Amino acid sequence: MISVVILGAGNVATHFYKGFSKTENVSVKQWYNRSLDTLNQYKNSVDITDNINNLKDADVYILAVSDDVIGTLSEKIPFENKLVVHTSGSVSVYDLDKKHKRGVLYPLQTFSKHAEMDFANVPICIETVDKKSYPILKELAVNLGSPTKKINSEQRRVLHLAAVFVNNFTNQLYRIGHEITESKGAEFDLLKPLILETAKKVQGMSPYMAQTGPAKRNDKKTIKAHLKLLENKHHKDIYNLLTTSIQHTHGRKKL
Amino acid sequence: MISVVILGAGNVATHFYKGFSKTENVSVKQWYNRSLDTLNQYKNSVDITDNINNLKDADVYILAVSDDVIGTLSEKIPFENKLVVHTSGSVSVYDLDKKHKRGVLYPLQTFSKHAEMDFANVPICIETVDKKSYPILKELAVNLGSPTKKINSEQRRVLHLAAVFVNNFTNQLYRIGHEITESKGAEFDLLKPLILETAKKVQGMSPYMAQTGPAKRNDKKTIKAHLKLLENKHHKDIYNLLTTSIQHTHGRKKL
Repeated sequence: MISVVILGAGNVATHFYKGFSKTENVSVKQWYNRSLDTLNQYKNSVDITDNINNLKDADVYILAVSDDVIGTLSEKIPFENKLVVHTSGSVSVYDLDKKHKRGVLYPLQTFSKHAEMDFANVPICIETVDKKSYPILKELAVNLGSPTKKINSEQRRVLHLAAVFVNNFTNQLYRIGHEITESKGAEFDLLKPLILETAKKVQGMSPYMAQTGPAKRNDKKTIKAHLKLLENKHHKDIYNLLTTSIQHTHGRKKL
Repeated sequence: MISVVILGAGNVATHFYKGFSKTENVSVKQWYNRSLDTLNQYKNSVDITDNINNLKDADVYILAVSDDVIGTLSEKIPFENKLVVHTSGSVSVYDLDKKHKRGVLYPLQTFSKHAEMDFANVPICIETVDKKSYPILKELAVNLGSPTKKINSEQRRVLHLAAVFVNNFTNQLYRIGHEITESKGAEFDLLKPLILETAKKVQGMSPYMAQTGPAKRNDKKTIKAHLKLLENKHHKDIYNLLTTSIQHTHGRKKL
């Protein structure tokens, strides 16, 4: 049995809490947050605290907090030589106070607070400063049911950056699709199956092979008609840049 | 029973053929293509031809061919006053020869030739020049199991444009995610569940509400670190433009 203390009360902390609560081999001994507001609803199931000096003894302390407080919060943990990990994609493992054994459990997924999350769909990237801590973190992730991957800091930073492209930027393209359709009285809902199919397609085929459309075909007539239809200069800029990008990828244009 | 003749042998033509073959109320009377190469494999199930002058009499002629041959092919159909439709997102319904009753069956989906397509996930947008043709096209789509939507030409053009954003451009962001990860020895596969979840999220929530990440939070430190990590100038341009776009959408920045 591995005992953990969770620190933080955001989406990642909440999903870790719920995930560990269902396992037989991991026990959440305590849940800390600077305010008890969000934790109060769980007080009958787990020991909650807003006093960092009251932290209980445990095998692993998981800091699922904002990037900018990871360092200072890790200093305040009133123990030494404990395994303390954060869950961020972009913060160095060395930002954790060096009095601890240090590591990272980076869940590569987007979490909504209220939607249930199946950890089978959450790859957890594991990084540790000392080798001995790795199997403990791996066991935590495996108990959640997550696929795991041992990575280094550079790979984690790159994955986090790539995640911005395939998640935040992609979502912004959905947003622009929403803006374009709504502004002309067409229904964004009609695009939803296409959005899902586009994402499904690259589960088994490279994005290179999956590409289609006017930019790849170098269909100048359609590209011109699209640019004419776009009234927003900013939308035109994005259309031009991503069309050029596709044409470059598929050998139609040099950058 | 509605009888149809399919013209063309690409992905859309093939999926329409397979889809109609499963229905009880639509019969594919003939399948035409300028070459019989791809059609030969179906010759035991349907009458095939490469001679436009041998077209059989039918209720509906479906031109699932390249945009630039829709007009000339429709002229060559050796009948008048028949219902002739194309399946393109961007070609005007008036590009069809005016000797016909004219319409459009625009399936708003990305088709792969070999993957099976469930038409329940293919909204079909219907446009007709005369009102009487509409119920016939609607019945074709309903028989396939597709959701249908009556639209006009302007809405169809806008949907096709928006589809380029949410499909082709999104897929290019996946491609860049692939390039970034592979160039640094990280695994693109780790991003696949995130790609799927990002698409699933907007099925029930607006892209505006679904947005997260450093651009939305205006997390300058992470944005700066990402730009430093990007070695390719073109990737940097896309990062900057889409970050600005998100910040504009979420009130962080004026364009």
